[in-house]
Amino acid sequence: MKLMDIRGVIPPVITPFKENGDIDFNAHVRNIESWNACSLAGYLALGSNSEAVYLTTEEKIELLQVTAKSAAPGRIILAGTGAESTRETISLTNEAARAGAQAALVLTPFYYWTRMTEPALIAHFTQLADAADIPVLLYNVPKFTHLNISRRAVEVLSQHPNIIGMKDSSGDVAQLASFQSVIPAGFNLAVGTASAWYPALALGVTTGILALANCCPKECVEVQRLWEAGRNQEAQDLYRRLLPVNTAVTATFGIAGLKFAADLLGFRGGTVRSPLQELTGEEQLKLRQILVVAGLLGS
Amino acid sequence: MKLMDIRGVIPPVITPFKENGDIDFNAHVRNIESWNACSLAGYLALGSNSEAVYLTTEEKIELLQVTAKSAAPGRIILAGTGAESTRETISLTNEAARAGAQAALVLTPFYYWTRMTEPALIAHFTQLADAADIPVLLYNVPKFTHLNISRRAVEVLSQHPNIIGMKDSSGDVAQLASFQSVIPAGFNLAVGTASAWYPALALGVTTGILALANCCPKECVEVQRLWEAGRNQEAQDLYRRLLPVNTAVTATFGIAGLKFAADLLGFRGGTVRSPLQELTGEEQLKLRQILVVAGLLGS
Amino acid sequence: MKLMDIRGVIPPVITPFKENGDIDFNAHVRNIESWNACSLAGYLALGSNSEAVYLTTEEKIELLQVTAKSAAPGRIILAGTGAESTRETISLTNEAARAGAQAALVLTPFYYWTRMTEPALIAHFTQLADAADIPVLLYNVPKFTHLNISRRAVEVLSQHPNIIGMKDSSGDVAQLASFQSVIPAGFNLAVGTASAWYPALALGVTTGILALANCCPKECVEVQRLWEAGRNQEAQDLYRRLLPVNTAVTATFGIAGLKFAADLLGFRGGTVRSPLQELTGEEQLKLRQILVVAGLLGS
Amino acid sequence: MKLMDIRGVIPPVITPFKENGDIDFNAHVRNIESWNACSLAGYLALGSNSEAVYLTTEEKIELLQVTAKSAAPGRIILAGTGAESTRETISLTNEAARAGAQAALVLTPFYYWTRMTEPALIAHFTQLADAADIPVLLYNVPKFTHLNISRRAVEVLSQHPNIIGMKDSSGDVAQLASFQSVIPAGFNLAVGTASAWYPALALGVTTGILALANCCPKECVEVQRLWEAGRNQEAQDLYRRLLPVNTAVTATFGIAGLKFAADLLGFRGGTVRSPLQELTGEEQLKLRQILVVAGLLGS
Repeated sequence: MKLMDIRGVIPPVITPFKENGDIDFNAHVRNIESWNACSLAGYLALGSNSEAVYLTTEEKIELLQVTAKSAAPGRIILAGTGAESTRETISLTNEAARAGAQAALVLTPFYYWTRMTEPALIAHFTQLADAADIPVLLYNVPKFTHLNISRRAVEVLSQHPNIIGMKDSSGDVAQLASFQSVIPAGFNLAVGTASAWYPALALGVTTGILALANCCPKECVEVQRLWEAGRNQEAQDLYRRLLPVNTAVTATFGIAGLKFAADLLGFRGGTVRSPLQELTGEEQLKLRQILVVAGLLGS
Repeated sequence: MKLMDIRGVIPPVITPFKENGDIDFNAHVRNIESWNACSLAGYLALGSNSEAVYLTTEEKIELLQVTAKSAAPGRIILAGTGAESTRETISLTNEAARAGAQAALVLTPFYYWTRMTEPALIAHFTQLADAADIPVLLYNVPKFTHLNISRRAVEVLSQHPNIIGMKDSSGDVAQLASFQSVIPAGFNLAVGTASAWYPALALGVTTGILALANCCPKECVEVQRLWEAGRNQEAQDLYRRLLPVNTAVTATFGIAGLKFAADLLGFRGGTVRSPLQELTGEEQLKLRQILVVAGLLGS
Repeated sequence: MKLMDIRGVIPPVITPFKENGDIDFNAHVRNIESWNACSLAGYLALGSNSEAVYLTTEEKIELLQVTAKSAAPGRIILAGTGAESTRETISLTNEAARAGAQAALVLTPFYYWTRMTEPALIAHFTQLADAADIPVLLYNVPKFTHLNISRRAVEVLSQHPNIIGMKDSSGDVAQLASFQSVIPAGFNLAVGTASAWYPALALGVTTGILALANCCPKECVEVQRLWEAGRNQEAQDLYRRLLPVNTAVTATFGIAGLKFAADLLGFRGGTVRSPLQELTGEEQLKLRQILVVAGLLGS
Repeated sequence: MKLMDIRGVIPPVITPFKENGDIDFNAHVRNIESWNACSLAGYLALGSNSEAVYLTTEEKIELLQVTAKSAAPGRIILAGTGAESTRETISLTNEAARAGAQAALVLTPFYYWTRMTEPALIAHFTQLADAADIPVLLYNVPKFTHLNISRRAVEVLSQHPNIIGMKDSSGDVAQLASFQSVIPAGFNLAVGTASAWYPALALGVTTGILALANCCPKECVEVQRLWEAGRNQEAQDLYRRLLPVNTAVTATFGIAGLKFAADLLGFRGGTVRSPLQELTGEEQLKLRQILVVAGLLGS
């Protein structure tokens, strides 16, 4: 029986850096405090939008500890702990557990993507779930991994008592629906991109782990509130208004864009780590204009 | 002002062939008669699922004439008339008009896909719409064209008085929503795959041009009826039940699969034209089993 | 036993159009006359670079007749006759034979690319070769078809007495070498892009069907002459000098670029057919500069 | 002025593991000793074929130390030290220098591949080369990174005094030739796949960092020796004979295949680390047969 019930909006939190490239923990705490004031369900640290691939293990652990300590009571703490090898994933997951993570969100290994077959992924996640001190959620993000987990693998893995959910960031709504047909009741299926937030809600998905929630937490929460109140048209309208913003802070401008939007909207984005590059002045102007058009920023 | 209002389910009709490879017009008429008994909005002839790329111009015209003559009163007749060159597309569109098509569904040219830029597509469709005797609908199907029409091109083209709609077969629901933000009222935006049918309805799309409607017309219509009656959960359940069938008759087994399923479900699929290959015996068994599991066929 | 021996450089000839979009047959004849003055092995009409997908059947036949009539004695006349259906491909191939084509270069069908499996391609080309009045060459061009013919299919088809060669435009030199291992002696394996011309020669390939030969016929011929004379370094140097030009007139600027370069270098490019777009002024300047840097045009 | 001259065949060495998943250092030393008996130019440790993404930093350092200590005098020791962040790449490169690496082969960062633009890559490698205690070679491997370094980036970076070479594993021979046009004399351009070994030699490339050299070191060396002795046909024949083996131990069966072939041919492959999976019995039979057909193994 799976006991953890995840429901609502969770930002995969950005990691603010100082000019010298070190983590700006003060800025991070200030962000958590700002998000605590919104009706978010929790925080995902060490995700793709956290520049986790740029953090050392020590930095990851400290970030988690600070996140867990700063989060408002009742907010769930998820940690991205996927590594390429099974053994390192297990190790990092259990370190994360000790640092305060309540569950681990685990990326499909992908470097040798042509060999990450259905049996390989099933074996990997099963070994992990068997050995992990906290529950595991699968993380499917073809945009970065060039790999899409199969419905059959989701079906098999969702039966494991220690695999309690999944974040699907493919943006493929039909796939989300097809996953719903094969998972057991209580399995926490989350949509991983705001571009599919309203359609996912309409399909009965109740969790969104959304990069956009870093800079627009209230609006992401409001889409769900309106939908659940039966105010479908208002939910749709808000969702559609957010779409160009989401495209800008993900596909078009990436994490530097997400951080710049966060800065403009009252959070602390800070700089990105090299080799990511800051937005150019022209890109900043374009992004600012998109926020203005969406009614999120005064002109 | 755009006067044509397209609403409901339209099958992109299969073209039955005899064993010798000629069109089986009798079987085609029988199919139309069977579909006339369902609450479909009309018929699309000469689409991707019609094996239109395998038909001569003469065959296309005769098929259209027969389709128009056999269709129940009030059913809209759409014709796929996209060719690679603008001049041939215009020519074929106007021939189709004379043969009974009420509107043309026009594929983006794609052979020189790297050069089919936004300006090229805008120029192509504008020249066509200026010269066409019937209204034009855009047809976006990246699965076959390896090309995705931009939101900006849709925005510009949807202002043309003779471009009255679009079929988006990308399956990308977020894109469908983003198109909705830029099209004028009355523009007929249709979803082009049953894999996105329920999510599209939830977004306010009211037209589905669905390959699946060849073999499961009643079920496709029923999803919409349930949704519009506010019976969301039943609509979703039926949609989800149809998903594996849709995957089978499109992605997995292609047109040979769609025709075989049509045969099993009371229509006349007939053979495919070479170089398409018929299903193997093993493939037939798998597809039959998928229909059984979906409750469409007795075991 | 295969009797046709194709060796040397063959341009897949451009089709000049007048401002009104009609074929400019005079310009075409002038081009053939210019190319007749170079040591080319023959001409491929109705290829990808001929905008064949924009030509009607009547235009194709007339182009072939004019080409055959204008070609210098001894030049081989190849015609691109691939259509999506097997029956139309056979029909067009035999019409081409009557119009003067000595052999047909036949594109892999590709619209339903996921179903164009090894057995489907083998069946298609076998039926064609059985029915064709002239010998057949396979044409593999993944850039346009998103399909790559397998080594096994080449192995099987190259045994057919009426399949006498292949143009591989993949640019994949290792694949070219792997095809060499499975084809019979006398099978005419041609490289289909100047980007691989020197490496192909080094592997023992003796035929190049090269878009670049439209505007740089002498240089393409000279690479082979130098190589065959044992002047490897000079052959390499010339090949490397041509590489940026080839990239410009294919990948970067497409057929409009190839035609503009032809115009600059003494041939008659003419306009492209819609929806292809002419080069912008800025693109023209860039391309001109590339020709200058390569020493093909005075500054 | 660049002083390091790399010429000849270098295997990107496999990392043997014990059944329990730990590195089998004894087996590794035995492999080095076997390779010492062949005319190889040196060893690349911590490359893609070393399962480097599965190794901890401590394991990487120890592997390097053991490799450097076991290598025959005069063999160059290269280390794969690319990480996603610039700072970690610098750190690992300098640790590798202290452990005995003479130069670092550095993968393009790729997780945020859409943002790894030309300027981002130039900035990354420049910062690294400025800070590195040993010379740097660029490593381009689109198969794993889904990213292809531009000719312009190679042109700029190859001017840096501490960037002394590049391994291009794209398999794109035309690209190799185009890189040759923009690099300074003395820049060590290596081909990174045996599928392009002979064509690369024919273009004047004199270095091959070849996975195949793990199991077929003598044959890889022999291709170069024959070519340099002017025995082109024999070089080609051997190259062509090795092609199916190379396909098998890379594209078809991956590292598990490379290790199994190494075992069969007298080296110590050992197991792969999870989530990589061992070959199935059927796969083993197929691979064994490919080695037999190539004349590398008795039947």
